[in-house]
Amino acid sequence: MKIATLTIVGVGLIGGSVGLAAKRRRVAERVVGVGRRADRLTEAIGAGAIDEAAELPAAAVRSDIVLFCTPVDAIAGGVLQAACCCGPGTLLTDAGSTKRGIVTELEGALPERARFVGGHPLAGSEKQGAEHASAQLFEGRITVLTRTARTDPEALARASDFWRCLGSEVRVMTPEEHDRSLAQTSHLPHLIAASLAGSLPPELQELAASGFRDTTRIAAGDPSLWAGILLQNRGPVLEVLERLRQDLAGWEAALRDGDRQQLEDLLGQAKRTRDALGN
Amino acid sequence: MKIATLTIVGVGLIGGSVGLAAKRRRVAERVVGVGRRADRLTEAIGAGAIDEAAELPAAAVRSDIVLFCTPVDAIAGGVLQAACCCGPGTLLTDAGSTKRGIVTELEGALPERARFVGGHPLAGSEKQGAEHASAQLFEGRITVLTRTARTDPEALARASDFWRCLGSEVRVMTPEEHDRSLAQTSHLPHLIAASLAGSLPPELQELAASGFRDTTRIAAGDPSLWAGILLQNRGPVLEVLERLRQDLAGWEAALRDGDRQQLEDLLGQAKRTRDALGN
Repeated sequence: MKIATLTIVGVGLIGGSVGLAAKRRRVAERVVGVGRRADRLTEAIGAGAIDEAAELPAAAVRSDIVLFCTPVDAIAGGVLQAACCCGPGTLLTDAGSTKRGIVTELEGALPERARFVGGHPLAGSEKQGAEHASAQLFEGRITVLTRTARTDPEALARASDFWRCLGSEVRVMTPEEHDRSLAQTSHLPHLIAASLAGSLPPELQELAASGFRDTTRIAAGDPSLWAGILLQNRGPVLEVLERLRQDLAGWEAALRDGDRQQLEDLLGQAKRTRDALGN
Repeated sequence: MKIATLTIVGVGLIGGSVGLAAKRRRVAERVVGVGRRADRLTEAIGAGAIDEAAELPAAAVRSDIVLFCTPVDAIAGGVLQAACCCGPGTLLTDAGSTKRGIVTELEGALPERARFVGGHPLAGSEKQGAEHASAQLFEGRITVLTRTARTDPEALARASDFWRCLGSEVRVMTPEEHDRSLAQTSHLPHLIAASLAGSLPPELQELAASGFRDTTRIAAGDPSLWAGILLQNRGPVLEVLERLRQDLAGWEAALRDGDRQQLEDLLGQAKRTRDALGN
């Protein structure tokens, strides 16, 4: 795959990493960055993540792919803004952590000729900003792309090629399937990590060793960005939260009853699953 | 501090690391290892963690310090076995993750001349076994030592010197204070990590990225060892679990109400606390 112009809207950790990877792997001849802050875009040019800065919708017109890496609340609006000016030759896609809300809103509002495919690279960090970007961020990771009855197969194939060229594996699923899955693998863990971190009183901080640090690491993520993700996916998140509540009642009963066998069974099941994930 | 003979009962990750550190830092002239499995003790000699293998109670008689690094359920029994044969010149201490149960049982049963001090180095890993031991494991970490009305001040001072010589900082608190604190900083996070890991269905494993892996890393710990810890400290663990349940109800209400400000406040408080802990 060789793209003449790739535009990245939102040049933070993900957007910056896409730019670095696209240039390093010669996937795009030219990478254009769009963002609110001129100083950040200048830094991204300096870091080699983008070649130049531009604005929407002008940048979209001359782009083969426009990738939205902004906070999830801003994605649909940005895509609509870009779509008004570009033709069916331009692939509009995103890297947002939620999919149903974005895809549904866009399918109801995009002009017929626009080609949009929802996407979500399962890579990231609690760190923010293009200064933590890495050309290797997507290597060996999975990117989820969404397919609905209205998804253009050719656009989906191009989005798939694009992420594979950045080193990622691709999985295709419905937006709903993505959101239900990610509620369990990402959004609930974030909420729990934040709850554990937020309830630690200052006097216990020095007693929080590596186990606590690992378990709460993602709680250092950006609060505004995560509030958006949790709200966009609140239905599935509330469902997995309810399941967790039931699971915790099981742990509580085992503890109250002093049921060692039950505790070892629960801990054993957890260890087998965690061991299977590798490091 | 210079010890002629240090005996380590249970030469796993913690015991092995104590042995390596004690030898590397020349804290002990001779390190004796006690364990159930001869092959593991031979490996520990090969790795330089201990100089020789021996058995209780004989090993205790000729030791200046006997440190118990076995699973928490086995510590009090081991200390009693050792105490029958050694005099007041021998410091008996431990590295168990719970303290109230062990200290209470021993204070009710130890002969008057025995000198026992409860201890817990806040270092470790989800990995098990002396093959993961490290002479640096305790450097810059905190070791909690317990003090009760029956604790001998001189024995406490020796235990304190010992851990400082291994590179650790020392904090002194009551067994109850230790157990309440660790319920929140270690035992609840372990239970939660295990609950999250254990509920992940196989088909979602490939969608579990770095956030899920961090949050559940400690769930790879040894199930039997952790069942013992959770049961020994079940009162305080049940209390913090109840507080977590109340906290989660707050998150749930904010999600249900679509209260973005409240979510950002909760996430912001979590981020500030987590940022303060460092990496």
